[in-house]
Amino acid sequence: MSVSETAEKINSMEVRGALRIAVEAARALEEELVNGASYDELVRAGDVLRDARPTAVSLPNSINYVLHLAESHKDNDPVVAKPMLLADISDFISKLEGSLDKIAEYGANLIEEGDVLLTICNSHTVTEIMKRAWADGKRFKVYACETRPRLQGHITVKDLQATGVDVTLIVDSAAYHTMIHKDVKKVFVGADTVYSNGDVINKIGTSQVALTAKHSGAEFIVCTSSIKFSPFSVHGEVVEIEERDASEVAELPGVKVFNPAFDITPKEHVNMIVTEDGVIPPEAAYQVLKDRFGWSLG
Amino acid sequence: MSVSETAEKINSMEVRGALRIAVEAARALEEELVNGASYDELVRAGDVLRDARPTAVSLPNSINYVLHLAESHKDNDPVVAKPMLLADISDFISKLEGSLDKIAEYGANLIEEGDVLLTICNSHTVTEIMKRAWADGKRFKVYACETRPRLQGHITVKDLQATGVDVTLIVDSAAYHTMIHKDVKKVFVGADTVYSNGDVINKIGTSQVALTAKHSGAEFIVCTSSIKFSPFSVHGEVVEIEERDASEVAELPGVKVFNPAFDITPKEHVNMIVTEDGVIPPEAAYQVLKDRFGWSLG
Amino acid sequence: MSVSETAEKINSMEVRGALRIAVEAARALEEELVNGASYDELVRAGDVLRDARPTAVSLPNSINYVLHLAESHKDNDPVVAKPMLLADISDFISKLEGSLDKIAEYGANLIEEGDVLLTICNSHTVTEIMKRAWADGKRFKVYACETRPRLQGHITVKDLQATGVDVTLIVDSAAYHTMIHKDVKKVFVGADTVYSNGDVINKIGTSQVALTAKHSGAEFIVCTSSIKFSPFSVHGEVVEIEERDASEVAELPGVKVFNPAFDITPKEHVNMIVTEDGVIPPEAAYQVLKDRFGWSLG
Amino acid sequence: MSVSETAEKINSMEVRGALRIAVEAARALEEELVNGASYDELVRAGDVLRDARPTAVSLPNSINYVLHLAESHKDNDPVVAKPMLLADISDFISKLEGSLDKIAEYGANLIEEGDVLLTICNSHTVTEIMKRAWADGKRFKVYACETRPRLQGHITVKDLQATGVDVTLIVDSAAYHTMIHKDVKKVFVGADTVYSNGDVINKIGTSQVALTAKHSGAEFIVCTSSIKFSPFSVHGEVVEIEERDASEVAELPGVKVFNPAFDITPKEHVNMIVTEDGVIPPEAAYQVLKDRFGWSLG
Amino acid sequence: MSVSETAEKINSMEVRGALRIAVEAARALEEELVNGASYDELVRAGDVLRDARPTAVSLPNSINYVLHLAESHKDNDPVVAKPMLLADISDFISKLEGSLDKIAEYGANLIEEGDVLLTICNSHTVTEIMKRAWADGKRFKVYACETRPRLQGHITVKDLQATGVDVTLIVDSAAYHTMIHKDVKKVFVGADTVYSNGDVINKIGTSQVALTAKHSGAEFIVCTSSIKFSPFSVHGEVVEIEERDASEVAELPGVKVFNPAFDITPKEHVNMIVTEDGVIPPEAAYQVLKDRFGWSLG
Amino acid sequence: MSVSETAEKINSMEVRGALRIAVEAARALEEELVNGASYDELVRAGDVLRDARPTAVSLPNSINYVLHLAESHKDNDPVVAKPMLLADISDFISKLEGSLDKIAEYGANLIEEGDVLLTICNSHTVTEIMKRAWADGKRFKVYACETRPRLQGHITVKDLQATGVDVTLIVDSAAYHTMIHKDVKKVFVGADTVYSNGDVINKIGTSQVALTAKHSGAEFIVCTSSIKFSPFSVHGEVVEIEERDASEVAELPGVKVFNPAFDITPKEHVNMIVTEDGVIPPEAAYQVLKDRFGWSLG
Repeated sequence: MSVSETAEKINSMEVRGALRIAVEAARALEEELVNGASYDELVRAGDVLRDARPTAVSLPNSINYVLHLAESHKDNDPVVAKPMLLADISDFISKLEGSLDKIAEYGANLIEEGDVLLTICNSHTVTEIMKRAWADGKRFKVYACETRPRLQGHITVKDLQATGVDVTLIVDSAAYHTMIHKDVKKVFVGADTVYSNGDVINKIGTSQVALTAKHSGAEFIVCTSSIKFSPFSVHGEVVEIEERDASEVAELPGVKVFNPAFDITPKEHVNMIVTEDGVIPPEAAYQVLKDRFGWSLG
Repeated sequence: MSVSETAEKINSMEVRGALRIAVEAARALEEELVNGASYDELVRAGDVLRDARPTAVSLPNSINYVLHLAESHKDNDPVVAKPMLLADISDFISKLEGSLDKIAEYGANLIEEGDVLLTICNSHTVTEIMKRAWADGKRFKVYACETRPRLQGHITVKDLQATGVDVTLIVDSAAYHTMIHKDVKKVFVGADTVYSNGDVINKIGTSQVALTAKHSGAEFIVCTSSIKFSPFSVHGEVVEIEERDASEVAELPGVKVFNPAFDITPKEHVNMIVTEDGVIPPEAAYQVLKDRFGWSLG
Repeated sequence: MSVSETAEKINSMEVRGALRIAVEAARALEEELVNGASYDELVRAGDVLRDARPTAVSLPNSINYVLHLAESHKDNDPVVAKPMLLADISDFISKLEGSLDKIAEYGANLIEEGDVLLTICNSHTVTEIMKRAWADGKRFKVYACETRPRLQGHITVKDLQATGVDVTLIVDSAAYHTMIHKDVKKVFVGADTVYSNGDVINKIGTSQVALTAKHSGAEFIVCTSSIKFSPFSVHGEVVEIEERDASEVAELPGVKVFNPAFDITPKEHVNMIVTEDGVIPPEAAYQVLKDRFGWSLG
Repeated sequence: MSVSETAEKINSMEVRGALRIAVEAARALEEELVNGASYDELVRAGDVLRDARPTAVSLPNSINYVLHLAESHKDNDPVVAKPMLLADISDFISKLEGSLDKIAEYGANLIEEGDVLLTICNSHTVTEIMKRAWADGKRFKVYACETRPRLQGHITVKDLQATGVDVTLIVDSAAYHTMIHKDVKKVFVGADTVYSNGDVINKIGTSQVALTAKHSGAEFIVCTSSIKFSPFSVHGEVVEIEERDASEVAELPGVKVFNPAFDITPKEHVNMIVTEDGVIPPEAAYQVLKDRFGWSLG
Repeated sequence: MSVSETAEKINSMEVRGALRIAVEAARALEEELVNGASYDELVRAGDVLRDARPTAVSLPNSINYVLHLAESHKDNDPVVAKPMLLADISDFISKLEGSLDKIAEYGANLIEEGDVLLTICNSHTVTEIMKRAWADGKRFKVYACETRPRLQGHITVKDLQATGVDVTLIVDSAAYHTMIHKDVKKVFVGADTVYSNGDVINKIGTSQVALTAKHSGAEFIVCTSSIKFSPFSVHGEVVEIEERDASEVAELPGVKVFNPAFDITPKEHVNMIVTEDGVIPPEAAYQVLKDRFGWSLG
Repeated sequence: MSVSETAEKINSMEVRGALRIAVEAARALEEELVNGASYDELVRAGDVLRDARPTAVSLPNSINYVLHLAESHKDNDPVVAKPMLLADISDFISKLEGSLDKIAEYGANLIEEGDVLLTICNSHTVTEIMKRAWADGKRFKVYACETRPRLQGHITVKDLQATGVDVTLIVDSAAYHTMIHKDVKKVFVGADTVYSNGDVINKIGTSQVALTAKHSGAEFIVCTSSIKFSPFSVHGEVVEIEERDASEVAELPGVKVFNPAFDITPKEHVNMIVTEDGVIPPEAAYQVLKDRFGWSLG
């Protein structure tokens, strides 16, 4: 898919999901390179792609990584350098594509026979983990928050139910009561962005679930590829929380609505983050960022 | 209104609201007495009324109080006793009817110019407080949780808006984020039942809001008439949390839904309870119960 | 039983248990009175009894109450006063003797079908509660801490097992792990002394269990007659924590041992106290003391 | 002292200290009565006195109590009523004057041999407690916060030192560090006002000391006469925190200064309140108010 | 010692202690290699050793590390490779053997003159630290929990006492009371396993001591070689908590006993871990694992 | 400046500020080297400099780093090695000098339009951050604690005011009240030393501000160059908290004063540390130390 086509599909949300976006952006640059693009053209292609979705951190992360690879080869003999670069990009894409599988494996290991789990929103990573554990023969219960205003919890419930996972829907405000009275042991959630200090940005309601998990003795487990860790946060850049349209919440003429799309869960309420690099404490976010994007943090 | 008519209207929820139920039950017994009922007939009338709504504590509280008055007069000369009893019952009804006004006055005093408030569900007591403070000339902001699954928050929003109070609707899961980022100072909620140790039963989601209030530094204020304090809890009797129909939450065929109607907020998350007897710490619930229903606590 | 005999049996611990001690002391004074003792002789008898066990608060509470009754009659015509006094003392003893039954009833009401409970030490009040709930047909599990160094938990386990209650023994240090992994919902313990601010003195280990209960989301419920509430604490008098002999812990020659017999659980870790006057928050201790011993608080 | 003279001395702070103010106001009304004032003149005298210091709760409490006494006698034969009223007022004054002694006794009982104590500001009640305990032969250490901006801690230090108490001065910001590293066991502070829900208003810095006490395992003990409990707070009336002049903090031309004189310590950080009625949990504030000022809470 | 002999001694617990096990396993493989074992034979020897004690993480860690070294040399000329491999193994063993000394040095540095310490169970690492600090001339007190059911605290007490360290035995349930009333400043414990997110598995009771340390203001310090850090936990594998025989706790026929051998202390209750690589926050566990076992985490 | 001159100026505090000290010490060694000093002479010069200020960690860190560079070149041909060494030292000094700028940039990014900030003491790093954010056009409020006993807050206030930043002075004990009532969102402080486990040593009062920030929902942000991270703490060495003269606090003859200059903020109260390497969680301190001073941690 060409750069412009990819940018368009990312913009129109035809290509969605942080991991998919990262993969498609890298592929578009790869194709550009195959088609003979120079380093400078690649940089410009990166700019086009980057503008397609200004808020998702996986997009600039992927583009910057490919450009970083390109830059490190740029002064070498193109005959030798180009195949090496293409191989590097291909490796990067493979690793991205394989990350979901790794996280599913590690996350499924964390689920124990007889567990009671809870989740909020619809994280593909989280449902993969649960389905993997179920396929491994473990039996457990899942409570899924409906996740107002857009009710993504319905997708979660249908997806899990289709594979036979024992899942029950609750309203968001019943999360704490359910944790206490149904003996929830672990909460699994996805992430939108992970800050360098370990704080986690995710769907509105997540920080509330994390606080209540801590107070009811449940573990709070974030599941996400490291492509969503923000190198920008290393420089202190903060994500502006998107406020969405009132109509998502209610069609009440003249009624004011405050509709934030995300919130921030502080690191001290997160027991662990499951990444393709393994199970880490949130505080290892900085190390992961240095290992992966250290070249860009100068 | 006759006993049977009252019982029917309470049962069909034509008569609703804890205070209204208490008043109408007392009135029905009063009418019975005027019509010449004996003490034993009054007791039987009480049984009929009591069965009309087994879960609301204000109903047996009101009936038992009237019967207690009747009993204390029962061995006296009816010519003298009956007018005295009717006067006592009339006093009791007046006090019940006046309690909302008192709570509105005391609660409104707690609101300060420039405050940011939050509420969940639709408590008539809470909206009265806010409207009173607004009428007193104080200017403040209110955030109202929509209160899934039945969206009683919409009633709250419309009610406040109609009197000009500056109110904004949020989804339930945005309560914590709103408290932190909009500097919420005080949370006002109603109550369904208050236990003798100060724990408060209220609409599902309340305990979650109380916990998040504590963690964001906001005061959590329960507003309720003492007719909802449970003398049964003095004897260790616990309220069974009602589980309501799945269809209230979602129409998803085959999907399991857990839909508890209430939850329990522990006393340590409650800063104060505003009653018609004044502003009390939740731990004074036992004292209020002894003062009011001590005769029944044997 | 004569005053001297009673004093001796209390001293030798033949008469033991706070409630039994209180009852026997009151009975000894009653007998003294029947035998013609004057008010001053009664006061002296009280001194003898009081010295039999200097640390148990129920003993002076009982004696002081009887003397208070005696004093209020002392200036009246003995022919009238004595029978009235004897009747008052008899009432007091009946109430004391009935208190265990009341607490058992109220405490049993707090136990719900399917509950998982935990207790430490051997409280007759607590085992009565559990046996009553079991006899009521409720089915639940109990974990009992062995309660080093004297292993009173063994008595608890055998006592419960004899009536068929499903009980399991654990070492004291497994309490927190058990609460989390076995979903303990409620902890029931007795009390040695209750302070006027609601703090509770009980067997060493209790404060640790209370803290862990709070952190694992379990309710911490103290069960005790109000005869153990300390009027002395109203005046700021503190109980000196008894340190017992090293040999209770280990026979290791030359090894230093610190063996405190009790500890203090702060009110904020106590959800409720079950007394014969009902279920109260710990903070109502002062009110209970005023209601019962107000005459002595001058 | 006449009403106008008393009012002037209260206004000019020649008469200061909540207890002294209460006593002198009651005495002025007593004198007025002796001089033949009618009930209406007494009410007007009360108004004059009340205006002398609008923020101290002990002043209206004292005046209202005396007027309440006067009102209850007002319709009786003055020949009989006046001496009775004067006796009642005299009793009230005696009780006020004796309250410091009671609190000193109860508070001193709470101090144990070898204790390490901490205090902030200069509370006459607190220093009396410490001096009483020291006079009782107990040996302990005291850390006194200097209490910026007016350095009332210097008065505390000199006062304690003059009676030989082992006292050490610290800056306010060293309170937490001192608690941890010098093993502070108990913090004693006075109070300006106690709310009906148990919250305590006292000198700026108190709420910070209370929080750090809780986190370092020290008990936080408020010492105050019940004349400072606010009946107005029963009706939800809140105290406006006084902001004092910038020059108290620093003489820096053009520099903005925020100089609040008081802050509010929430009840959950207060272990007990020592009053002349004994040691109570803060949550018993409502009960104390009802016992003392119940007639005014209607 | 041959592989089979070593395996047997590990299995029979003649060789015990995580570090000793790791050293002996490495030595057995070294000897195998000296005796001419091929790479495949070494792998099989590793399997034999691994099966000797399935739950101790130091055993597979040591075996895997030696096999990793062997694998990296396996395709080279044996004449050159074998001496290099033997040198590498020898280095590894030296480092293992030296780690206790390093930890003792670093841990002893953390002890300050006049400290009051507490420990649970018998950790050789912890006693080495205390003995080293004592030998350095520092004077401090130690409280040792008896550690039911196997009373390993007795070994701790005797070991410390033999070198003159001032040590006192307590029952496990007295830990919290002792921390508060004896001003415990630091708790030192060993570890069985450290998870990649910083959670620590250790003897039953440890998590309870950690919680109480946090609440009494004491530091909680884990002391352990990095050979006990679990690379398996990076992949989400959880340790199943061993349940041991009832007879260890009590010989009460027919009595059910729950006897878990270990528990899990969450990272937020751990102030630091002292390893041979220095003093680290628990959250650095992932970094240590990557530095040491990164080759195996692929 | 010569080594002896530099040492003298550091000793007399003419050269002050951790970063300046580090730079000047490195420069003195650089000059020594330019003047022909041998490696051994350099080591001795390091000793002289190190003694000039025994407590500041940036001084030995800088010296040790330069000596480490020197050592790595010491066995090479001086003709080649010396210029290389001088270049390395020059790089090191540049990086040191540039670190303030980096921290200012990253820290300023963390400040958001409309924020309310609070600081204690006078940290040049913190004021640079605030001035940078202000210069970027962001508008916010700052509350500055006066910082007894030496009132460094006055310097902060004047410095910020001179650049137009909206700053208000408060007494130290008003920090908690201000956080709650003025909606403080973020606290920025400097650091004296950072431990390898993430604990932070800073001016007395800092740990109290951190605790109150946590309880009022404000973020606590430490701003410091990594030159203040302590490699000594990796080995368990603890900083002895300096106690300064009584006269700094008050001139009260015969009055004991406890005047600690610093305190320790535990890692769990620190949201992030802003360093020249980016924004890190405090728990990444160990990683930063390994990256920077790993050669010295052997």
